[in-house]
Amino acid sequence: MSTTRSHVIIIGGGVIGTSIAYYLAKRGQSVTLLERSQLGTEASAAAAGMLGAQSEMEDTGALFQWARKSRAMFPELSGELRELTGIDIGLVREGLLNVALSDVQEAELRAREKLQRAAGEKAQWLSAAEATAIEPALSGATCGALYLPDDGQVDAPLLAAAFAQAAGVLGAKVQPFAQVQGLLTAQERVIGVQTAAGPLYSDHVVVAAGTWSGQLLGSIGIELPMYPVKGECFSVRTPKPILKKTLFSPGCYIVPKAGGRLVVGATVVPHSYDRKVSLSGLAELMERARGLMPLLCDAEWEKAWSGLRPQTADGLPYIGKVPTVEGLYTACGHYRNGILLSPITGRVMADLILGGEGTSEQGNSAIAPWLDAFSPDLSPKTNRVSQQDQDTFSATGKELISIETAH
Amino acid sequence: MSTTRSHVIIIGGGVIGTSIAYYLAKRGQSVTLLERSQLGTEASAAAAGMLGAQSEMEDTGALFQWARKSRAMFPELSGELRELTGIDIGLVREGLLNVALSDVQEAELRAREKLQRAAGEKAQWLSAAEATAIEPALSGATCGALYLPDDGQVDAPLLAAAFAQAAGVLGAKVQPFAQVQGLLTAQERVIGVQTAAGPLYSDHVVVAAGTWSGQLLGSIGIELPMYPVKGECFSVRTPKPILKKTLFSPGCYIVPKAGGRLVVGATVVPHSYDRKVSLSGLAELMERARGLMPLLCDAEWEKAWSGLRPQTADGLPYIGKVPTVEGLYTACGHYRNGILLSPITGRVMADLILGGEGTSEQGNSAIAPWLDAFSPDLSPKTNRVSQQDQDTFSATGKELISIETAH
Amino acid sequence: MSTTRSHVIIIGGGVIGTSIAYYLAKRGQSVTLLERSQLGTEASAAAAGMLGAQSEMEDTGALFQWARKSRAMFPELSGELRELTGIDIGLVREGLLNVALSDVQEAELRAREKLQRAAGEKAQWLSAAEATAIEPALSGATCGALYLPDDGQVDAPLLAAAFAQAAGVLGAKVQPFAQVQGLLTAQERVIGVQTAAGPLYSDHVVVAAGTWSGQLLGSIGIELPMYPVKGECFSVRTPKPILKKTLFSPGCYIVPKAGGRLVVGATVVPHSYDRKVSLSGLAELMERARGLMPLLCDAEWEKAWSGLRPQTADGLPYIGKVPTVEGLYTACGHYRNGILLSPITGRVMADLILGGEGTSEQGNSAIAPWLDAFSPDLSPKTNRVSQQDQDTFSATGKELISIETAH
Amino acid sequence: MSTTRSHVIIIGGGVIGTSIAYYLAKRGQSVTLLERSQLGTEASAAAAGMLGAQSEMEDTGALFQWARKSRAMFPELSGELRELTGIDIGLVREGLLNVALSDVQEAELRAREKLQRAAGEKAQWLSAAEATAIEPALSGATCGALYLPDDGQVDAPLLAAAFAQAAGVLGAKVQPFAQVQGLLTAQERVIGVQTAAGPLYSDHVVVAAGTWSGQLLGSIGIELPMYPVKGECFSVRTPKPILKKTLFSPGCYIVPKAGGRLVVGATVVPHSYDRKVSLSGLAELMERARGLMPLLCDAEWEKAWSGLRPQTADGLPYIGKVPTVEGLYTACGHYRNGILLSPITGRVMADLILGGEGTSEQGNSAIAPWLDAFSPDLSPKTNRVSQQDQDTFSATGKELISIETAH
Repeated sequence: MSTTRSHVIIIGGGVIGTSIAYYLAKRGQSVTLLERSQLGTEASAAAAGMLGAQSEMEDTGALFQWARKSRAMFPELSGELRELTGIDIGLVREGLLNVALSDVQEAELRAREKLQRAAGEKAQWLSAAEATAIEPALSGATCGALYLPDDGQVDAPLLAAAFAQAAGVLGAKVQPFAQVQGLLTAQERVIGVQTAAGPLYSDHVVVAAGTWSGQLLGSIGIELPMYPVKGECFSVRTPKPILKKTLFSPGCYIVPKAGGRLVVGATVVPHSYDRKVSLSGLAELMERARGLMPLLCDAEWEKAWSGLRPQTADGLPYIGKVPTVEGLYTACGHYRNGILLSPITGRVMADLILGGEGTSEQGNSAIAPWLDAFSPDLSPKTNRVSQQDQDTFSATGKELISIETAH
Repeated sequence: MSTTRSHVIIIGGGVIGTSIAYYLAKRGQSVTLLERSQLGTEASAAAAGMLGAQSEMEDTGALFQWARKSRAMFPELSGELRELTGIDIGLVREGLLNVALSDVQEAELRAREKLQRAAGEKAQWLSAAEATAIEPALSGATCGALYLPDDGQVDAPLLAAAFAQAAGVLGAKVQPFAQVQGLLTAQERVIGVQTAAGPLYSDHVVVAAGTWSGQLLGSIGIELPMYPVKGECFSVRTPKPILKKTLFSPGCYIVPKAGGRLVVGATVVPHSYDRKVSLSGLAELMERARGLMPLLCDAEWEKAWSGLRPQTADGLPYIGKVPTVEGLYTACGHYRNGILLSPITGRVMADLILGGEGTSEQGNSAIAPWLDAFSPDLSPKTNRVSQQDQDTFSATGKELISIETAH
Repeated sequence: MSTTRSHVIIIGGGVIGTSIAYYLAKRGQSVTLLERSQLGTEASAAAAGMLGAQSEMEDTGALFQWARKSRAMFPELSGELRELTGIDIGLVREGLLNVALSDVQEAELRAREKLQRAAGEKAQWLSAAEATAIEPALSGATCGALYLPDDGQVDAPLLAAAFAQAAGVLGAKVQPFAQVQGLLTAQERVIGVQTAAGPLYSDHVVVAAGTWSGQLLGSIGIELPMYPVKGECFSVRTPKPILKKTLFSPGCYIVPKAGGRLVVGATVVPHSYDRKVSLSGLAELMERARGLMPLLCDAEWEKAWSGLRPQTADGLPYIGKVPTVEGLYTACGHYRNGILLSPITGRVMADLILGGEGTSEQGNSAIAPWLDAFSPDLSPKTNRVSQQDQDTFSATGKELISIETAH
Repeated sequence: MSTTRSHVIIIGGGVIGTSIAYYLAKRGQSVTLLERSQLGTEASAAAAGMLGAQSEMEDTGALFQWARKSRAMFPELSGELRELTGIDIGLVREGLLNVALSDVQEAELRAREKLQRAAGEKAQWLSAAEATAIEPALSGATCGALYLPDDGQVDAPLLAAAFAQAAGVLGAKVQPFAQVQGLLTAQERVIGVQTAAGPLYSDHVVVAAGTWSGQLLGSIGIELPMYPVKGECFSVRTPKPILKKTLFSPGCYIVPKAGGRLVVGATVVPHSYDRKVSLSGLAELMERARGLMPLLCDAEWEKAWSGLRPQTADGLPYIGKVPTVEGLYTACGHYRNGILLSPITGRVMADLILGGEGTSEQGNSAIAPWLDAFSPDLSPKTNRVSQQDQDTFSATGKELISIETAH
């Protein structure tokens, strides 16, 4: 590991850290990314890759604004990454059906339809007959579905790999198996990081270590409340594709991948620090999935896995300058939206570090006003959501299902 | 592939074929075993390895006699194989609980207790309290269990590997990836086999190709009715062992392997020629297993797989000389008892081929009278089970559960 | 397995069989494809996916004509398959460097340059300096390279999967784990096939079973000399892409895949019926690869594998109507060119079966004159290459390297 | 994660940490073991499992005394672990051939023969003819071999699993995925550890985290110089066993495992923090292995892997009480001898923590005098090896081969 100074050191090789490295490298910055293990093997590898800007958001606050902006970046990004690395990130823009299985869910989705139309997004309520006409594999027991034609999906593990490789092609030093032991500071400024192979110095340090970010920042007294929320998934195969659009319902989603593969997710196990896939989680998820799409019964089992989503106290990510320590930034706590938000997070962080929007490749005027909502400065004086706002926003962190395993 | 003549050619590299090769090689015979793919990768690899001489048998006919004789061979065999190959076949002799989950099942098991005691076997009915005292992980919903202390288990994939390697050490030629295209005959005698690499000649040929034996014999006009019965299984892990004895109930068994691993089986899908693990099969098996042992809920998912059991028309294997073609033998159709019956099948086949019991290492007097029951000669004149006997014996082939998948 | 009659039955689920199924299904035919195991798991799964229409061909005979025609089909095919199945077959059209490591090789490549230019193909000799300027990872020890800008590559395993799924979407019945036991004939006509689950009837049967085609045809007396030629490969990974174009030299090729993955092939072990990767084969291949591209030393080991290429006596595939048995066709023996030739083979076979070029979607006028060169009719009266032509063509089957393993 | 207080907390779930947990649990202590990832997945999983008490040691100092004492513990330990967990740790006591491939090596081994005989160990020089008579697969190019009949081997990954499960059976809390963030101290005493899920308190804390121990201790100012030394390995399979004894030569060892599997190791890459298996390392290791045992050429490739051995500045492990912090212990830095030394390390650590040898199950009189040699107290006043002793001992840390990879 060279000790050559970088302008920016990024800690964390998931989809957020590698996106930041990519956008900084694109703008000619010297960047070193340090990942303690292999690249992209934690939450980024476990994600189903939904780009649910509309399906995951329950209001039109900051998270929604970022989400739709980020979703819009994927088509161009997909081409850039393929050009640089040969990797096709599997962008599919076939839309998503937000399925109602009860009257209550129907009412909620109809309300959401109005909200999203008012915000200028496409959303269309389909009757059961209309929904099953579009996706014949959908259960006949549905009450209907909210069709979101602009939500899509990517191959999440490939996205992290493509960001990392593209950053490397553009000059970033991307180092797997490089564990950061601590942050080096001097006179209220970060000056680098300590690694097993010695210190590395830089002007800026970005902590983008997912659910492990909290403890790294905590080691220098920055308290950002975070906890992991385990999600268990499985996949099956069918001889030929039987689903075009992603199905999304309370407690279960089914994402059609290339070649007849279907990814089914996900349980919600808060405060779980292991990645054990439990039999009970799997059984419950199977039951929900069969309720949503009975044809799954005949599908061929492929495998099961899990990941730890990084959740925060109020359900909003921490993105921005860390207070009191000059040169230190974080971008973490994206919970279930890390894949979706990775492009916008990478680009905004690059802007921030490079000192202002003026140098950005594209204007962020739509985003900047919302940045304060994610400030890692939790002191009362800041603009991070006030209490009543928190009530609103915390809804975004609300668990749709909650499978508690006995311990 | 050398064309050197062998005394015996065996077709099939599963646990039956490799056992026959082992017992022939032990007695100094020149043997060539031909396996079309890798060794031990079909039903032998999928088996849970139960040695259920008592738990799988519902009467005291020929199959039971062979089963208990074969079970008794394992301790010595285990030592021999370890000595020759270094492979520990994982023999465990902790007994088995045949669990009743209803009054009907209890009645059936109590009847079986009497039958087996009368046959001189150990069998003891345990109340629910007694059973859960021995195995605390067993569901409290049980009505009790028949304790069979002498039934046990081995590691099935290792058993096939050990037989094959031991046969090789003793001089047998064991050839994976050697596909037999046909049987060579002359003047109502088998003279060898045709392979992709040319003909191989021998004095004797044994067809031990599991569920594929029927079609090979059929190609020279020998009709032995057979069909595959798919069984789907899965395994989980626990941090420390929570089960000592195998649990066996209608529709589900749980076999404790070394290191906290539990193998759960198995569905019964007749006439399935593929090895697809279906979501519905898996879900149903999980539900049954959790009913038998609720603690499974917390166990960690490992994997799922399946195998094709070779079933016959009357539920009894075909073992012996094939009628009308001199020098031709078969040993197939062991259904769910292939692992258990492999030692006795191997030794009896060696006796048969070498021309009589006189040369056997151990007297087969207990077995010989039962051999006719498995004769591949299905003509009315033979001693294979008469019709009323068939009614009795066919019970052994009765499916305990039957999960039919839609096609 | 349904016994509903199909117009065409195809035996073999590799890239050739699935391509034929795809082109027949596209034209509305009822097709059943039978694969004895999983789809696309033999030679199709092992191939590096080079589309070496120019690099693999040593003359401008029939094989070359088919190859360049087939190569030209990939861009449109790639779009069609992606549309139908979501699978991106990984088509890369970055060209290929045919590298000379000795004066003799240089002379041979310069001769080939002239030949191919005369045939209207692009080919350009590059000095060592020019070649390493284009691909800096190429060994400085090279004497130069013939640059073939129009040769490319695909992801071979995905191609087979995409053909199979696309055929299914278009209505074909694609059945894995369906073993064909024999061909059914009546009055010098094929009427169907025998499977383990019973007979299946059809008007036409196509044998596309790779290296196993010979024995299936042999079972009804059609002798087509064939033998397997094992090829061993390995792959490595680099943190970022270090190679754009495929490197091809006597004894070794290096194919850059997406995301910094490099596939290195391949040994040549004739008459090997197993798929064992030997230590000696691997070691020799590593040495050759490092000679071609020294930077490989630092690359990260991924895995090794092998496949059996179907070779014929004269090095040319057998494609067309089988003589003496009405309704029976074959398409096999593509040796190292199965991936490249799969589109043209599929389309021409569809034309043949549907009775003439008139119904073809595109005219095959460029191909039809060459079809006789591959006729499965080996009788002296046919137009398959005469002896002196065979001398020419057999060069295409000439092994570039030959690593003989001791037996 | 419960916050119930334990008597002892052990950090690290490799073979050292789990052995300490096992010996403490055996003596009735309440123990919590915390592993940041899965159990036994780092160096313990990568080891070939040689018990080279004589082959690895170059003098008769403290390391040798511990090694032979520890080797002697395995037979009894093997039975205990099997009884508790069902896991057979694969103990093989067939001896080891320390092979000379040059006159210099022969001279060195003959000197070692004398040294070890003088120390009371069995060691016998064999001529080339004698050595190849015992192991016909050994290269004829050998100059002879030192036969060490009492050295043996175990299955290293199973040893760690067995220790962990046995500790659990005896009451220890063994927690994978529990990352320790820091050591909690008060008034020069350790009082527990900080984990992501909150603090855990205990009377004693043992740091047994392999090559990561140094940084954890460093975080509270205890400097123990350590660095990782990567070792790359591979394995092959043969159809039947062709080697009985472990072959050990400068630069390469070949360990015969059950069922014809051969493990070949290992490269030596100091200061490597990643676990990448490089093509160059693999190629060089293959070449050495083929020199030692030419028959390997025909063996079937299985896989490659690597591990990071924890090396210390003077080549001796750190075992014992950490100076200046009451209640804190460490056991790390076992380099290539972790498997071999795990039983004695576990038992001695249990003695130390429980306050004296008096309570030990077996007297440690042979070990106690040597304990100071491994003291983690590196201050000049201690009894850790004086400078001239260090010269002697450091030989044990001398690399037998050194393959430096370019960076």
